[in-house]
Amino acid sequence: MRAVDIIMKKRGNPSSPQGESLSREEIEFLVNGYVRGDIPDYQVSSWLMAVYFNGMSFAETGILTDCMLNSGERIDLSGITGPFVDKHSTGGVGDKISLPIAPIVAACGVRVPMMSGRALGHTGGTLDKLESISGYRTSLSVPEFRTFLEKTGFAMTGQTKEIVPADRLLYAMRDVTGTVESIPLITASILSKKVAEGSDSLVFDVKCGSGAFMKSLPDAQLLAESLVGTAREMGKKAIALITNMNEPLGNAVGNFLEIEESMDVLDGHGPKDVTELTLALGAWMTVLGGKAANFDEGMEQCQAAVQSGRAMELFMENVALQGGDVEKLKRDRGTRRSPHHTEIRATQSGVITKIEAFTVGLAGVHLGVGRNRTDEAVCPDAGMIFKHRLGDRVEKNDLLLDVFSRDEAGLENAKNLLTKAVHYGNAAPKTLPIILGEITKL
Amino acid sequence: MRAVDIIMKKRGNPSSPQGESLSREEIEFLVNGYVRGDIPDYQVSSWLMAVYFNGMSFAETGILTDCMLNSGERIDLSGITGPFVDKHSTGGVGDKISLPIAPIVAACGVRVPMMSGRALGHTGGTLDKLESISGYRTSLSVPEFRTFLEKTGFAMTGQTKEIVPADRLLYAMRDVTGTVESIPLITASILSKKVAEGSDSLVFDVKCGSGAFMKSLPDAQLLAESLVGTAREMGKKAIALITNMNEPLGNAVGNFLEIEESMDVLDGHGPKDVTELTLALGAWMTVLGGKAANFDEGMEQCQAAVQSGRAMELFMENVALQGGDVEKLKRDRGTRRSPHHTEIRATQSGVITKIEAFTVGLAGVHLGVGRNRTDEAVCPDAGMIFKHRLGDRVEKNDLLLDVFSRDEAGLENAKNLLTKAVHYGNAAPKTLPIILGEITKL
Repeated sequence: MRAVDIIMKKRGNPSSPQGESLSREEIEFLVNGYVRGDIPDYQVSSWLMAVYFNGMSFAETGILTDCMLNSGERIDLSGITGPFVDKHSTGGVGDKISLPIAPIVAACGVRVPMMSGRALGHTGGTLDKLESISGYRTSLSVPEFRTFLEKTGFAMTGQTKEIVPADRLLYAMRDVTGTVESIPLITASILSKKVAEGSDSLVFDVKCGSGAFMKSLPDAQLLAESLVGTAREMGKKAIALITNMNEPLGNAVGNFLEIEESMDVLDGHGPKDVTELTLALGAWMTVLGGKAANFDEGMEQCQAAVQSGRAMELFMENVALQGGDVEKLKRDRGTRRSPHHTEIRATQSGVITKIEAFTVGLAGVHLGVGRNRTDEAVCPDAGMIFKHRLGDRVEKNDLLLDVFSRDEAGLENAKNLLTKAVHYGNAAPKTLPIILGEITKL
Repeated sequence: MRAVDIIMKKRGNPSSPQGESLSREEIEFLVNGYVRGDIPDYQVSSWLMAVYFNGMSFAETGILTDCMLNSGERIDLSGITGPFVDKHSTGGVGDKISLPIAPIVAACGVRVPMMSGRALGHTGGTLDKLESISGYRTSLSVPEFRTFLEKTGFAMTGQTKEIVPADRLLYAMRDVTGTVESIPLITASILSKKVAEGSDSLVFDVKCGSGAFMKSLPDAQLLAESLVGTAREMGKKAIALITNMNEPLGNAVGNFLEIEESMDVLDGHGPKDVTELTLALGAWMTVLGGKAANFDEGMEQCQAAVQSGRAMELFMENVALQGGDVEKLKRDRGTRRSPHHTEIRATQSGVITKIEAFTVGLAGVHLGVGRNRTDEAVCPDAGMIFKHRLGDRVEKNDLLLDVFSRDEAGLENAKNLLTKAVHYGNAAPKTLPIILGEITKL
């Protein structure tokens, strides 16, 4: 078998320009050979570009995912009673859904083995948010992960180097060769990590809009279909919601600020959009886990888990288990803020017609919420709180945002960006629902 | 400027999937950076694959050609009076046209600075054929090349390492990354070398059929249009003929055997197809060189160059100038054959309906005519002579081919291939003309 023949098979030729599906043997040859160092970068990058153009069937993407998965270790959940269901978001601004959803769904009897990522660019990261809780550890050993999962029904950890090394190698190559934006490659990257963590069902939150990776509804739809279709090819139960990421999700963008907002959701008084999306995704997790017969039943169970206080109890138990200081968390809530503060006020009277999520995300990087390079540190207490949202009528000089920065320079840069991120008009804007589409037929 | 941005510009995105044309600065950045070693293989290979899918305009291909050209030296023809016209063939089986055409066109007052290649795979090489003349040297210094070109109106040399190093680097990369079959990349590779040798007009012989790189007429048409269109963008005069390569060209396939057949053409009694194509391509070279007003006038001049014996005189003068033993050549003609000989006879009575050029080319490699790897030696005296051609009626056991091999093993392998390469039927096959199409509007 030669790599060049596999590349050409995927590439196609004038009489068959869309190429052919690769076999398991061929995909294994490429992925295993690359991980071993037998197949050079330049053959992998030209294959990735051929995949960008000619795509992959769900079955083929499933095989790629499987080969990537087999390049490393999987978390062994044997001996623990399931069902194991996780949620994955493709990333957005102010997206803290993982934080409240895990204890809510765990309270419904579903186990949530959650492996999360860090902030990069304009998008935030669940691990950075969790680590803003004093003492909270996100690098769990497998025995710890298993123990915490059994005790409270969920556990939160980061991806280790042993999990899917092929994904790290391939992602680094895609990043410098213009092959990031390929739906099957995105799918395999996401799925390989999710399957490695041991879930047998997956709920996908595919973000769509200016603050998301997928800017348009058709693109988001394609990714959602690919994630669900490929997961099912791999024998997993899966559904996807396509959700609005044109304005930031919730009122808070930050690390500790989003922990606070997540606790508000668990207390039953979170912002409407965050609450609605958390409960909808949670309801589907409950359905996939077999604890609810349908969405409405799942929704009732999730609402009950909040109203009874059980979800908040599990959240606090998890904080304690993962090393967090529960008493300090309670004291910090509502008070812990970066010292460099400014207010953004309305520059004119009118209706807020747009809040650019992408620009808000970039402002967050200046404040210290996120990072541009993976080796940069984030600031737990930086961020912003929106006092008005899309569609609100404001008077000139009304307070729009409280902004907290780790330093004055960042504050100044963020202020300039945030002032430009808010648009005004005379008429109420067309607002989109939080859920724009769904692939939920089981 | 970042390589990844240039790759993505060519690659396009969902709203503009065909990508954009790259600027001169961007193409220079890639090509020069690659030759210098600043841009890694994996970025070049993914860019090459993006070019495979999204193509390049003639203007863009001209810029690429120019950048490749500037990576090395050009042959300096200043001080020599032109016009300088060369012919390029995309490669076939039995294609010896370069050998008779150069002296014919030189006899018409056009200078032919010819830089040729070697046999590889099923296709033959002009340099290997010339070197089958005892003593003939094909590695000329630039002063020698200039002197011989002035003296006899043509000179024959190989490509040096200093000519278009970017093409050698890019071709090696294309070969292992599935990006050989890209019309703009093929065009830039061919043109960069042809422009470097100093021609100001170019006649292209684009081979089409089972024994050619381009198997179908539409593909050959695209390549012909790209070669002519790009050459014109670069300020060169150019035309192309698309010619039949479904059966071997002429009766002889070999190195010295093809020298002999070329001399037959110069003597005025070459095989019909070789003679017709040589004169047609030669006529166009004469037109582009400004020595004939139109094709018919060019044809008359080329025919006269043969009939007067002037073309043969120039050929012999060139042999002497380039170190060949003219007297030995005359003695060898018609007699010099590899010792291992066999005959292929008709396996049945009927009409020859197909002679597979590609298979004949592969048989040639077994005999020692060609090579599979660039470091293999060829045998000057090996080859085959067809006694019957496509459309001939034969009786069972009629002699079809005389076959000469450097060794017995090769002879046996070739015999098996050649027996299968000839097909028989009852009805006369549909035969194609030698010239299938042309791009000759000036």
